[in-house]
Amino acid sequence: MNAQEPEAGAVTRESPIGVFDSGIGGLTVVRALRELLPNESIYYLGDTARVPYGGKSAATVQRYSLEIAELLLGEHCKTIVVACNTASALALPELQATMSIPVTGVIQPGAQAAVAATRNGHIGVIGTRATIKSGAYERAILALDPAVRVSTRACPLFVPLIEEGWLESEITDRIVRQYLDPLVQDGIDTLVLGCTHYPLLRKAIARYLGDAVDLVDSAENCATAVGQLLDAKDLRTTAATKGRLGLALTDPPDAFLDVAGTALGLEIGTVQLRQVIHPAKI
Amino acid sequence: MNAQEPEAGAVTRESPIGVFDSGIGGLTVVRALRELLPNESIYYLGDTARVPYGGKSAATVQRYSLEIAELLLGEHCKTIVVACNTASALALPELQATMSIPVTGVIQPGAQAAVAATRNGHIGVIGTRATIKSGAYERAILALDPAVRVSTRACPLFVPLIEEGWLESEITDRIVRQYLDPLVQDGIDTLVLGCTHYPLLRKAIARYLGDAVDLVDSAENCATAVGQLLDAKDLRTTAATKGRLGLALTDPPDAFLDVAGTALGLEIGTVQLRQVIHPAKI
Repeated sequence: MNAQEPEAGAVTRESPIGVFDSGIGGLTVVRALRELLPNESIYYLGDTARVPYGGKSAATVQRYSLEIAELLLGEHCKTIVVACNTASALALPELQATMSIPVTGVIQPGAQAAVAATRNGHIGVIGTRATIKSGAYERAILALDPAVRVSTRACPLFVPLIEEGWLESEITDRIVRQYLDPLVQDGIDTLVLGCTHYPLLRKAIARYLGDAVDLVDSAENCATAVGQLLDAKDLRTTAATKGRLGLALTDPPDAFLDVAGTALGLEIGTVQLRQVIHPAKI
Repeated sequence: MNAQEPEAGAVTRESPIGVFDSGIGGLTVVRALRELLPNESIYYLGDTARVPYGGKSAATVQRYSLEIAELLLGEHCKTIVVACNTASALALPELQATMSIPVTGVIQPGAQAAVAATRNGHIGVIGTRATIKSGAYERAILALDPAVRVSTRACPLFVPLIEEGWLESEITDRIVRQYLDPLVQDGIDTLVLGCTHYPLLRKAIARYLGDAVDLVDSAENCATAVGQLLDAKDLRTTAATKGRLGLALTDPPDAFLDVAGTALGLEIGTVQLRQVIHPAKI
């Protein structure tokens, strides 16, 4: 090997950003990254063979997240983005303690945006059962402003509704009302969409809440945080052309990938099929 | 070792029946087995760390099913019951070809019961996306009676609705109508509940369909088939006392286990936590 060349597979500014989610909801984060950082290459892993994470235990979600992070290290990613609220809520400290590269989640950026947005100091948070049970959003919000009040609600039917494609239906409107009414009664003026699928239900949620409640989309705020991280670590690409988007799933894609790709305006090319295995070190 | 004693771990009539499902919906089959074959011991494995199977590919469901069957062989089970319509639809031939012990699924018994029940020769089948897409029920029904007409519908929101505990609600009634109305319009007089969760929604389904449509519960018919198999293979226990019920999950239990246990009248004792790993031979 020529000593002047970088080691094969070494991480450089031109290495991809690794992004993962339990499924393909994390593509909302990919879209936000593509808009903000168009020249960065992205390698996305959706763990569709084990989706969803939202009803599973912390121990299992941590194990899955560490396995996927190892896979992304194998792809020589320069940083990892946990584009999944459940994995961010349950596994971010373990990932940050274990990985040799920086790891960004969606909770902290969402909490910052919510604290900046609220006028009456009362924030609502919706997410999967596991995200809500973890209390991660409350902790992040109260660490930023202990005077803020937080009301939370798990909405486990939202993801299957979205995957069924019922984005605009009377049934969806009724389920939205059933889940969100207690938060409205509580008096929130800001609602964190604490699951990367939920932006696909944004219209139905906004229709019920009206103008009185601001919606905080954790995907956009996460992309901003990743941009700041790349600058701080001197890891921004120097490329002047559009970055590559590599997409891998652990189970072959179904129709929902097309629905999401179209709704998000992403060019989905060939999808790799990857198997996540237990790394020996875990 | 004394040569007259059976080999440690050998399969005998007193060995347990191994039952598995993607989650805990398969407990409807366990209840039916307990009622019909009370003296048999049962070892149940619910793959809650990877639940649900219903939206996943055939290759992935086959891999998961073979991994779990290996685990049940390790428990010295005398027979395996696939208490999951998706795994029965996608993996039964592979399991039967690979395993040294007999394997029973839920599709064939359900198809037989449906063909026996229909008066007008028009059967409806509901299930997960993967079960319906596989065409397994149509094939089984038409093999029994090529003159029968079959109408099918995937109902992917039923399982999350059941797991949310919304068994009796206006939203549930609307979703039931949305999914089943096309089958009623088609003129079915018999409906196969082609997912082991669905018996928990039986009241809401019956309320919509009224007396004109017979419901076929694959759990009961599966238990009958297992009893016949044990007799045919001379594998019935000789015990005169109630058999043990061992319950293992791949993710720690949540509130839904209590909901299901109570609804089904099962005594759920200590739950084992098991990890399913890739066997070397697969």
